[in-house]
Amino acid sequence: METEITPSDALRNLLVEGDSEALREWAVELHPADLAALLRDLSIEEGVHVFHLLPDEESAAVLAESDEDLRTQLIENLPAEDLSRILEQMDPDDAADVVGEIEDPERFRKVLSLVSEVERAEIEGLLVHDEESAGGIMTSEYLAFPVYWTVQATINFLRQAPPDTHFNTAFTIDNQGRLKGMFPIQRLVWTPPTKRLMEITNPDVLSVTADTDQEEVARLFSKYDLVAIPVVDEEGRLTGRITVDDILDVVQEESSEDMFKLAGTSDDELVTRSARAVLTLRLPWMLIALVGGGVCALILGLFETELSTYTYLAFYLPVIMSMGGNIGTQSSTLMVRGIATGQIGGGGIGRTIFKELRVGLLMGGICGFLTGSFAAAYSNLSGDTPLVGLIVALSMTLSMTFSTIYASLVPLTLNRLGIDPAVASAPFISMSNDALGLSIYLTIIRILQPYLAP
Amino acid sequence: METEITPSDALRNLLVEGDSEALREWAVELHPADLAALLRDLSIEEGVHVFHLLPDEESAAVLAESDEDLRTQLIENLPAEDLSRILEQMDPDDAADVVGEIEDPERFRKVLSLVSEVERAEIEGLLVHDEESAGGIMTSEYLAFPVYWTVQATINFLRQAPPDTHFNTAFTIDNQGRLKGMFPIQRLVWTPPTKRLMEITNPDVLSVTADTDQEEVARLFSKYDLVAIPVVDEEGRLTGRITVDDILDVVQEESSEDMFKLAGTSDDELVTRSARAVLTLRLPWMLIALVGGGVCALILGLFETELSTYTYLAFYLPVIMSMGGNIGTQSSTLMVRGIATGQIGGGGIGRTIFKELRVGLLMGGICGFLTGSFAAAYSNLSGDTPLVGLIVALSMTLSMTFSTIYASLVPLTLNRLGIDPAVASAPFISMSNDALGLSIYLTIIRILQPYLAP
Repeated sequence: METEITPSDALRNLLVEGDSEALREWAVELHPADLAALLRDLSIEEGVHVFHLLPDEESAAVLAESDEDLRTQLIENLPAEDLSRILEQMDPDDAADVVGEIEDPERFRKVLSLVSEVERAEIEGLLVHDEESAGGIMTSEYLAFPVYWTVQATINFLRQAPPDTHFNTAFTIDNQGRLKGMFPIQRLVWTPPTKRLMEITNPDVLSVTADTDQEEVARLFSKYDLVAIPVVDEEGRLTGRITVDDILDVVQEESSEDMFKLAGTSDDELVTRSARAVLTLRLPWMLIALVGGGVCALILGLFETELSTYTYLAFYLPVIMSMGGNIGTQSSTLMVRGIATGQIGGGGIGRTIFKELRVGLLMGGICGFLTGSFAAAYSNLSGDTPLVGLIVALSMTLSMTFSTIYASLVPLTLNRLGIDPAVASAPFISMSNDALGLSIYLTIIRILQPYLAP
Repeated sequence: METEITPSDALRNLLVEGDSEALREWAVELHPADLAALLRDLSIEEGVHVFHLLPDEESAAVLAESDEDLRTQLIENLPAEDLSRILEQMDPDDAADVVGEIEDPERFRKVLSLVSEVERAEIEGLLVHDEESAGGIMTSEYLAFPVYWTVQATINFLRQAPPDTHFNTAFTIDNQGRLKGMFPIQRLVWTPPTKRLMEITNPDVLSVTADTDQEEVARLFSKYDLVAIPVVDEEGRLTGRITVDDILDVVQEESSEDMFKLAGTSDDELVTRSARAVLTLRLPWMLIALVGGGVCALILGLFETELSTYTYLAFYLPVIMSMGGNIGTQSSTLMVRGIATGQIGGGGIGRTIFKELRVGLLMGGICGFLTGSFAAAYSNLSGDTPLVGLIVALSMTLSMTFSTIYASLVPLTLNRLGIDPAVASAPFISMSNDALGLSIYLTIIRILQPYLAP
């Protein structure tokens, strides 16, 4: 039987053997993304060791591909000289991300002082922007030509300095550096050389400013099927470029963010290895939920007499509460995701809420009927009054309907107030849903109590 | 005060005035994506009316940008002749999606018979693929040149037939049509004309086959920062191309899918207007959850004696159950998302589960201690035994720890069995978490009962 050697085993063997030359040769053959994935499973000392062996260009690519946990470790543990040499090899936007992660101000200044003046200026220019804004994801590397240049002049320029990029969009600008439009570089191939760039420039170009939220930028890419978008300042001067491959990461990131927020935690969980760090992420919401649980206990305390007389009424507490929670989660997921993707908003909001109301009533009615029938039958068997079936059916229908409306309105309201609907929805909704369902059930019990057998 | 006229108002006014010429002129000025968004709010008759006025090319663009609900309506309600003319103007992959949505086989054949032979062959070639596979998202429009062509020959060809695409990747193939590699078209601009394409071809090219899952394709794009990927058959012959802008939609779609599945419903909710349709999406999971609720009622029934004697023990049912549910949701979200983005898997699984176990114990300990203290204090005030504090603290710690482990293992196991971890996790976990928490609480009550005051 042949045993296949995984890349992970190969790396471990090479590390044990201690043959640095063999390790280097093996590592540079790998795609930087694959190497970054393998380094994740090593200790930080081993990771730094492998990093030392790599040529700077390769190190730069691996660092750009690493996930946060490994990156932070490498950024903190590599000598400042090595780090600055690696930065020189990175795209300015990636380099700015790395420098931005250095926490020690002393080290921050030292690393920056070691990079070349040009690179430092670019990095510093990008560092001022919020990480989650257009400025934070744009790169200062782009091609921009005066709109009056001829195709031939542009070709000559490109022959002298071939751009090192997969993307083929070039911008045109006027004398003041203001954006005039863009054109695909490949068009130069089949345009007569004497034509001017203004003739192949598409002036109908969307642009954003550096402070535009990255989620908004992603929405533009996805809505208009964009490949690249220029970033301009208030005077319309070109300052950067965002390409669709960066947006792919943004979309992944924003979806993860919303998903984790809906569960009352953060997508930082995906990159941290430490249980203590996870605890700090989850604890705040858990404490809010605990307060909700305390409120539930107090509400139940008010009904102690009823509960001790008709103990069987407690049997249906869990199902009434959890069904309200379930349908509430569905409604709030719909709203949070719909707002994020732009599929809910504008004129459709009223219609969407009305639809949710009908869904809540229908679903509550069906579930209430089924659970009520079960309760009536069970009570009948145990010799209790089947009236409990009616109480359960009514409570479930009402609590599920209210949950639907409540869980729809909270995200919409938060969004209108400019608060991220994902972050605040989970705590608010979960906390109140339990208390709501409980109150409805207990109130109906109190109303119908005269008809219950003692 | 000036009143701003929204595009939606403008459209409505133009429809009421009935000036078709004005309506047409206004509509063609809009970006197809914007027009598609506006049509969503019209009745289907009005939508078809606007569609009739548009030139076929504009209609094609709007149809490609429409969301599913509007698309389906338009596809069903446009005359077959109009639809086939519009199809001619669409990219083959979009056209195949539209044709694939026609439900009536009669109409399907009629529409296909009306399009040109070339377009029909392309559409039929694409229709055989699963919608969520590489074949389903690829386009059959791509540039491929024999690898022995010179740069000049390629430029000459492109001058004759300039490609209508934003993307600048061209493929090179051998005599048998097998993929040799790819090159950015723009490189032709600065490469000496006598060189052969093999000299600028990058042979290190990832490719997929038509049956590769679209989620896997998206993972490749995101991991290796790809711009385009070729699709090949078993013999390595080029059959299609997928570009990063299509992947943007896939990533959005797959994230929505997982999010909605985690809430026990489907992302079809984002595009449907009908409450009845939503009901069918949500009901299956709700019924499973109801069964779970019934089981909870039966478990509580077994403990009727204890509950009627020590009613105050029922006060803490809600908080113990919901905290288990909360932490379970967090763990399963982490697993489902981590598996989807590729951040959890391979060697790290054991470590991730061990981390979750520690998180569960820590969090359960903290929450158990807090709730237990509250219970002890409350009982003391009401003259009951403070021993209930210990019972609550123990139960909460245990049930939160178990929930964490259970909610982590279910998605991982499902994934290993080849079942989508998102779809089955929610029903399984939610149903069992409630019953689990309840059983733990009631068992501890029964064990410690001798020490409770009568």
